[in-house]
Amino acid sequence: MQKLNRIGITPPFLVFLGAETRSAMVKTGRGLLEWRRELCRGQLRLSQDAVDLGLPDLTAAEAVGQGVKSLVIGTAGIGGGIPAEWHETLLDAVQQGMDIVAGVHTKLSELPFLCEAAEKSGARLVDIRTPPASLPVASGRKRSGRRLLTVGTDCAIGKKYTALVLEREMKKKGLNADFRASGQTGIMIAGQGIPIDAVISDFITGAAELLSPDNEPNHWDIVEGQGGIFHPGYAAVSHGLLIGSQPDAFVVCHDPSRDFISGWDDFRLPTIEQVIEQTVVIGSLTNPEIRCVGISLNTSRLSDSARQKATEDIAGRVGLPCVDPLKESIDPIIEKLISEFPAAPCR
Amino acid sequence: MQKLNRIGITPPFLVFLGAETRSAMVKTGRGLLEWRRELCRGQLRLSQDAVDLGLPDLTAAEAVGQGVKSLVIGTAGIGGGIPAEWHETLLDAVQQGMDIVAGVHTKLSELPFLCEAAEKSGARLVDIRTPPASLPVASGRKRSGRRLLTVGTDCAIGKKYTALVLEREMKKKGLNADFRASGQTGIMIAGQGIPIDAVISDFITGAAELLSPDNEPNHWDIVEGQGGIFHPGYAAVSHGLLIGSQPDAFVVCHDPSRDFISGWDDFRLPTIEQVIEQTVVIGSLTNPEIRCVGISLNTSRLSDSARQKATEDIAGRVGLPCVDPLKESIDPIIEKLISEFPAAPCR
Repeated sequence: MQKLNRIGITPPFLVFLGAETRSAMVKTGRGLLEWRRELCRGQLRLSQDAVDLGLPDLTAAEAVGQGVKSLVIGTAGIGGGIPAEWHETLLDAVQQGMDIVAGVHTKLSELPFLCEAAEKSGARLVDIRTPPASLPVASGRKRSGRRLLTVGTDCAIGKKYTALVLEREMKKKGLNADFRASGQTGIMIAGQGIPIDAVISDFITGAAELLSPDNEPNHWDIVEGQGGIFHPGYAAVSHGLLIGSQPDAFVVCHDPSRDFISGWDDFRLPTIEQVIEQTVVIGSLTNPEIRCVGISLNTSRLSDSARQKATEDIAGRVGLPCVDPLKESIDPIIEKLISEFPAAPCR
Repeated sequence: MQKLNRIGITPPFLVFLGAETRSAMVKTGRGLLEWRRELCRGQLRLSQDAVDLGLPDLTAAEAVGQGVKSLVIGTAGIGGGIPAEWHETLLDAVQQGMDIVAGVHTKLSELPFLCEAAEKSGARLVDIRTPPASLPVASGRKRSGRRLLTVGTDCAIGKKYTALVLEREMKKKGLNADFRASGQTGIMIAGQGIPIDAVISDFITGAAELLSPDNEPNHWDIVEGQGGIFHPGYAAVSHGLLIGSQPDAFVVCHDPSRDFISGWDDFRLPTIEQVIEQTVVIGSLTNPEIRCVGISLNTSRLSDSARQKATEDIAGRVGLPCVDPLKESIDPIIEKLISEFPAAPCR
């Protein structure tokens, strides 16, 4: 059995935001703050106009003085790199002994000036997007235990968030559940996982199989989805993650205010029904019992009354529970999951 | 515009077969021989039991004496590497000044003893599976010109062969067509291409877009397919190649004697109809006009009468031309293609 790509991140953290002004581009930092607030001591911004997460602004020196161990890069652009204007700040942090944790495509270890400084100071350069060295081709073998995958009508629409809420609320109910991270922010939060979109294509489904290994019969892996099965850029990633995860259940994440794929304005968002149908068609290859157990809405751009109408309309249309887990309880989806997959008796 | 990953291979060739006894595992060598026989001077085998391509057995020294410039590794296993028992032979070839051309997952450049010897002798180590350095995320933008993709019910079922025959026969008819290689053997034959299954998952569809760039309105790119859309290991690769290629037309490759996916014995082969339906559903994302123009059968394990029955049965059932291009003319498929996509008038 291959091991997961276990990332060792040492808290507490300083969240680096560069000069990024677009809120949607700092989802890594925001996710870390939301799910591990107790580990975040401050933020480091290169401009007063940059997104403000509400943490104290600290220099690298100040952060080290307060016991911070790792500077975590909290931005994630499309295909993201490390711009030259970050170099001085990153170098300073490393020289002061802080680890750098990054989830962008450019590898920290490919920047010689950082490597040299890290060797001298003893700081570590942690590339969250570097997959395990030798991944297998997928076997398609059915694994023990149960799995739920979050899928979406688009990227950045709530798949990670929904998975994390499901894990938290299922645990509160005494269910045996673990969040399985497939992307950089998720890996930072979970402390482990596989950056599925950084894997060589031949091995993507094999990597997805490793992400949710054999487990106890009543155990649920809550697998963080990626991309979207109708996404012109990332559908192949979603496909590999889907058939490798072999999910019993899935939840569709959707933003009712979005009409087009973000950044691909020629492509209309698929309907929830199209995503359900296509996820079942593709997922049936490795799990013929696959079914949808709910819809998770991102209604951040809707009024309360519009949100209520949207959840009711969709629930009625699709015939499944529909909630915005940021605004209301996700219990209806968990109840549907339990009713569809009653726990097997202990032996 | 990004450049293709142009591979410079210098003929003539010595085809290296190792000690491989399984005929299906030497498809790279066999393909090179079939489509570039005039460039192949001999074969080098590490055992008398190894597959015999019918070329003269030559040592590296003999090959160099006959003017051979490149030793081409002609085997391709699942996830293939470079076994230790090849090292001495490869080193000998490099020391004698021959280039080594490899399409396996292990990179030649990661073997220090080979790199050292190559530096001394001036030989080149050509890794056909190394994709271009900076690939884009797919844009989904519609490109000019026309495209045909070969797809399949399984791996190793005739997708490359069918594409090469289509290119050859379309050119004979005066059509403007180019074979576009997506795998190692195809790249060796075409001398260029992108090894699509070696690309990082995020960029697979972007790589597929580069593979068949904008072209003249009546030009056909004949794109070599990979994997299979119902393949438990490689479906994600097929998905990315499909939506990135944006094919107008596709041909389904099938072996009527095969009941299960090769090497995945728990998975039944999909039907031709399932592959057509799912290819249209997925391919419609980037080209709503996508349609199937024929079925290419691999009937190597059938008698002549069984072959005739199979092609007639399938043609009748599916309502499209069906031929074994190794045994009969592929013209019915080309005629269907021309009738579905008549050439636009010159302007």
